[in-house]
Amino acid sequence: MKYQEQNSKEIKEIIEKVKVAILPLGAVEAHGPHLPLGTDNYLSEKIAEKLSENVECLVFPTLPYGQVWSLEEFPGSVSLSNETLINMLYEIGKSMYKNGFKIFGIINGHLGNGTAIKEAQRKLFSEFSDFKTFNFFYTGTDKVIQEVRETQKLHKNYFHADELETSYMLYLADEYVEMSKAINGNPDYPEYIDITPVRWTEFTDTAVMGDATLATKEKGKKIVDTAVKNMSDIIKKTLEEIK
Amino acid sequence: MKYQEQNSKEIKEIIEKVKVAILPLGAVEAHGPHLPLGTDNYLSEKIAEKLSENVECLVFPTLPYGQVWSLEEFPGSVSLSNETLINMLYEIGKSMYKNGFKIFGIINGHLGNGTAIKEAQRKLFSEFSDFKTFNFFYTGTDKVIQEVRETQKLHKNYFHADELETSYMLYLADEYVEMSKAINGNPDYPEYIDITPVRWTEFTDTAVMGDATLATKEKGKKIVDTAVKNMSDIIKKTLEEIK
Amino acid sequence: MKYQEQNSKEIKEIIEKVKVAILPLGAVEAHGPHLPLGTDNYLSEKIAEKLSENVECLVFPTLPYGQVWSLEEFPGSVSLSNETLINMLYEIGKSMYKNGFKIFGIINGHLGNGTAIKEAQRKLFSEFSDFKTFNFFYTGTDKVIQEVRETQKLHKNYFHADELETSYMLYLADEYVEMSKAINGNPDYPEYIDITPVRWTEFTDTAVMGDATLATKEKGKKIVDTAVKNMSDIIKKTLEEIK
Amino acid sequence: MKYQEQNSKEIKEIIEKVKVAILPLGAVEAHGPHLPLGTDNYLSEKIAEKLSENVECLVFPTLPYGQVWSLEEFPGSVSLSNETLINMLYEIGKSMYKNGFKIFGIINGHLGNGTAIKEAQRKLFSEFSDFKTFNFFYTGTDKVIQEVRETQKLHKNYFHADELETSYMLYLADEYVEMSKAINGNPDYPEYIDITPVRWTEFTDTAVMGDATLATKEKGKKIVDTAVKNMSDIIKKTLEEIK
Amino acid sequence: MKYQEQNSKEIKEIIEKVKVAILPLGAVEAHGPHLPLGTDNYLSEKIAEKLSENVECLVFPTLPYGQVWSLEEFPGSVSLSNETLINMLYEIGKSMYKNGFKIFGIINGHLGNGTAIKEAQRKLFSEFSDFKTFNFFYTGTDKVIQEVRETQKLHKNYFHADELETSYMLYLADEYVEMSKAINGNPDYPEYIDITPVRWTEFTDTAVMGDATLATKEKGKKIVDTAVKNMSDIIKKTLEEIK
Amino acid sequence: MKYQEQNSKEIKEIIEKVKVAILPLGAVEAHGPHLPLGTDNYLSEKIAEKLSENVECLVFPTLPYGQVWSLEEFPGSVSLSNETLINMLYEIGKSMYKNGFKIFGIINGHLGNGTAIKEAQRKLFSEFSDFKTFNFFYTGTDKVIQEVRETQKLHKNYFHADELETSYMLYLADEYVEMSKAINGNPDYPEYIDITPVRWTEFTDTAVMGDATLATKEKGKKIVDTAVKNMSDIIKKTLEEIK
Repeated sequence: MKYQEQNSKEIKEIIEKVKVAILPLGAVEAHGPHLPLGTDNYLSEKIAEKLSENVECLVFPTLPYGQVWSLEEFPGSVSLSNETLINMLYEIGKSMYKNGFKIFGIINGHLGNGTAIKEAQRKLFSEFSDFKTFNFFYTGTDKVIQEVRETQKLHKNYFHADELETSYMLYLADEYVEMSKAINGNPDYPEYIDITPVRWTEFTDTAVMGDATLATKEKGKKIVDTAVKNMSDIIKKTLEEIK
Repeated sequence: MKYQEQNSKEIKEIIEKVKVAILPLGAVEAHGPHLPLGTDNYLSEKIAEKLSENVECLVFPTLPYGQVWSLEEFPGSVSLSNETLINMLYEIGKSMYKNGFKIFGIINGHLGNGTAIKEAQRKLFSEFSDFKTFNFFYTGTDKVIQEVRETQKLHKNYFHADELETSYMLYLADEYVEMSKAINGNPDYPEYIDITPVRWTEFTDTAVMGDATLATKEKGKKIVDTAVKNMSDIIKKTLEEIK
Repeated sequence: MKYQEQNSKEIKEIIEKVKVAILPLGAVEAHGPHLPLGTDNYLSEKIAEKLSENVECLVFPTLPYGQVWSLEEFPGSVSLSNETLINMLYEIGKSMYKNGFKIFGIINGHLGNGTAIKEAQRKLFSEFSDFKTFNFFYTGTDKVIQEVRETQKLHKNYFHADELETSYMLYLADEYVEMSKAINGNPDYPEYIDITPVRWTEFTDTAVMGDATLATKEKGKKIVDTAVKNMSDIIKKTLEEIK
Repeated sequence: MKYQEQNSKEIKEIIEKVKVAILPLGAVEAHGPHLPLGTDNYLSEKIAEKLSENVECLVFPTLPYGQVWSLEEFPGSVSLSNETLINMLYEIGKSMYKNGFKIFGIINGHLGNGTAIKEAQRKLFSEFSDFKTFNFFYTGTDKVIQEVRETQKLHKNYFHADELETSYMLYLADEYVEMSKAINGNPDYPEYIDITPVRWTEFTDTAVMGDATLATKEKGKKIVDTAVKNMSDIIKKTLEEIK
Repeated sequence: MKYQEQNSKEIKEIIEKVKVAILPLGAVEAHGPHLPLGTDNYLSEKIAEKLSENVECLVFPTLPYGQVWSLEEFPGSVSLSNETLINMLYEIGKSMYKNGFKIFGIINGHLGNGTAIKEAQRKLFSEFSDFKTFNFFYTGTDKVIQEVRETQKLHKNYFHADELETSYMLYLADEYVEMSKAINGNPDYPEYIDITPVRWTEFTDTAVMGDATLATKEKGKKIVDTAVKNMSDIIKKTLEEIK
Repeated sequence: MKYQEQNSKEIKEIIEKVKVAILPLGAVEAHGPHLPLGTDNYLSEKIAEKLSENVECLVFPTLPYGQVWSLEEFPGSVSLSNETLINMLYEIGKSMYKNGFKIFGIINGHLGNGTAIKEAQRKLFSEFSDFKTFNFFYTGTDKVIQEVRETQKLHKNYFHADELETSYMLYLADEYVEMSKAINGNPDYPEYIDITPVRWTEFTDTAVMGDATLATKEKGKKIVDTAVKNMSDIIKKTLEEIK
């Protein structure tokens, strides 16, 4: 159910019944020659849709701007500061809580938003202790990813416009994928990338961090469906606990 | 052309050619029983689409949250602070400028965003004096509105979920309008509403400020098409000046 | 009654009885060759005096600095940021409330202060819901102005150092007016002034936006007296409501 | 010369010639039964006037609100935060500098403003290294005060509504002094007042910290004239240095 | 070499030669019954000492307060906000840069400081692009830890007062360890701890997250010495690059 | 008793009994050729130790960075903004209060921290009115200093790396003093140093403001012991009052 399609007269009762607010959060960021700038937005939005087929919830309009520091120098990227994103998420969450929601799930499509999400969650937690918030980012997919992927991951935390993300797009929004332009982007991550600030433009021209040519819809489906199932399980379990 | 559908490899050249960034900006807010909470988002997004048919531009993903103070207490409303919205618009604008855009047009669907837009524009102007920004809010439609509307306006600045706004929706997004629920909301604006803070919940249960039953697609078309023409004229003229 | 002339020993009782705090708020800003930089201060201060003859109130010392963005580049202008002015008004209002005042009327002499006043009012409203605040800016004078003025207004919102403002000064503080230097400043407002940031220095050398030579004391008296009556009516009515 | 009496057309040339901006800064604060709430405003304003008779300068409109923490709980006090006052002074100073002033002298009438003044001066210094700012607070009067006063001072830094301040008022603004209500307020300063926060309401009902009955116009004249002379000497010397 | 032992006269030359600033950063936080509140401070300080034996550097005085959110509710914890810690690290870094340092290594003893460190590093990077900063947190010890530890790790990121951290303390500061009080703290991490805010007091009384009784000085030595070697290699390599 | 040596299990009971938190606060700042950059840290830390021998208290880890504006341009200085230091002290104090402390004594070793300490104390006072805070800076030593010092003081408030401070170091941390390098630094304070911002580098090359060669351990002992006695008396008296 889409939140913004509802009207003010009926929404109160609906919220009381449904209790779950879902916010797709993405970013506008370089994703190589074969994926669009809005990749993280399409993904978070589509995953939210799938989630809403598994568990009753109200999907809020996608927040399509995120914190893009590492890839900020690539053409097309749009970047918010952590501070602005924290305030945004906090204020949206506060409005949700005042409207009667009990659970606020953020479907995050962009790793770089993680810091701001965590901080916003803590602010909400400190103020509204009975408001459950979740940061969903391909939740619980480590195992299925290991089974599915053909290539080694280049970095323990990062994936970008690679076999995985391209597979997600093929499954969820293939109308925006140009597989003919997909490449095997295989730059080395700089040795110190985890301990010192590095703009990715320093070591890659494409922002493709892996072999995108190996992407398939099937891989995407397996991983995304797992994530969706995990998220809906978490929400259902939490709903039962707060009853 | 939708900005987020482009890819990083090609976008630089496109921006150099097109020069114009358009950001639809709305809000999630009560709009009576016949219009959805996302009315301002649908309107700004659709108007941006129409604009993009008249003048070459890149339409950015809609920013669907706004400053909703007056109607904050109605069920369903989501509200940002002015400060957060200012920073958001400023940071998006800054990224646009760094990406090479020369013109930043905000298609605003929600009057309450006006203060934040103006402040963000001034911040951008002070920092990037050759970056043109426009706050488009049904630009240049005073005359056509007077011709078209059958009812007197209740307030010199505000219209809300009334004959006008419902007409816009009928023209641009009638799939979200339930005319059977439309009412003639005719409360009195409190005498001092322009000089003292008033939550609208104090004087209306519906948030409908006018006679929504008189709305027609044709009225909406006349006004919206005028606005779109005006906006595209302004952009074209500005493009010529900066050549 | 002037607030700062009272002493601490007696003020508590006086506030309990009077209940109404009035703050004249102006700006230091270019007002052409015939009006002084402090025009907005003189006006707000004198109007406050007149108001205090009509309704019992305590007039606070004039806050003589305001938000001057549009005319900031003219020689002599002094400009505060919105943020600083908001905090200033909020903190003064908070002290008033803690001292026992029930009504806080701002006599604003400078249109550019409007945004900060509104935001400060909302902050006070959210924190102290039983504290009435009013933004008085030539309140309820649209009709009398239309009767009195000989020239068309150049802009729907702005007037500046013109027939009107010069008339106000002639009525309230003619010792600071040099009518011999008055001019008919008649520049065109730039077409897009309402939707894009424009420094007024871009289109006028004098900052006179109208025909100042037509100003008379009588015109000023009619308009100002109307405003004063309206303000005192509003205060009296509010006093009765809160009894 | 009063700054706000000048007009925009002539002010640029005047500033180039005069170079010196003087800002009287006071507070609204309890000053016992015999002195008005605006004592610090009257004093700073009158001293600025006297200064302007000794050295050519432009006196800005008095900023009549200050940081009043210690006496905030007394009836009538109005208090700004340090942060707001710092920003206010910084922004006023910045406008002065942009207008061409070379020297910015703050005539401070209220000790509690000292912290904010110092911080604002440092901000201005860091940004505009050739802009001289002075914090004038009864400058260079230690010796004459020792000669003149009949009572011991109760505290090494503080004086308040006492023999001294009342004398200043008798000399500069005796129309606001009610000597018949003057008392010998002689409370003990709490032992730890210099090292722990203390609201003065904890140890005095009157806010009179000394024997106000001993105040005379002559004492006030001797001290104030000394201060004025010192200030004008400093300004003259600085003017010569920056020539 | 300890920075604060040097004097101002000689320090400039020393910095020019040494180039490397090291800041031990810890926290005051519950570490079970057998480890002291200052565990993270002792560890970061001692590791900095060891590092300074391997590579020439100036060790700054330990910053002994950190961001302690998860364990904030345990007796004894002291917590800074991320914002304050970011500013602190940024300002210290800025002073280092102005003093001529080329490399700023933070020896972090407390995982919770990671977010603030990263943000401070990015601020410094954006402003001083030739200033290298490193976030050292048991750098490059994954492999040796796997070899050394006898127990499985309870969480992929967190360790706390467990076999590992107790071993570090036995190696570096055994005078503060009371092994007789060491326990096998083996609570389950809540299922959703990675995606929702959880105070650790919700699931453990001791804050010991593992089997502290298995700790030995030898284990600590192997891991810490590896980290020290890695850090000094990184610094040496960077020094060569910037020559 | 050192706070960070305690463990979380026992600390609650200890705090309930002891009630007093002591924070040594210093700075990293130029102190001439004979004293180290960390002089203010060594002094505050050693004085805290001495204090803890006189009155039962928990000494927190030294906060070794402070607000260093006046001497910021000297080699070696590290400077925090007032704002950051205020937040730091406020947040540490808040954690102390939540942990059950009743008294928070700051042993300040650096005059420049005074403004931030005072502001942080006021913030804590406003929020936790039953939390006593003290700013200890060589408390109550005016008289003994006058008896002991052989030289006149150069400035009523400032002393720096002079006869006094060097004596303190000789008494408390002579291992860091190189008396052979001590000089008689005798520059004139600029005439306006109290009323306008002055970097000390403008008038001294050494930052020694007095005759350091006259320093002796005995002088230091007399003054420091007096301060320690005064502080412990204040704490004891306060402890009795809050019983």
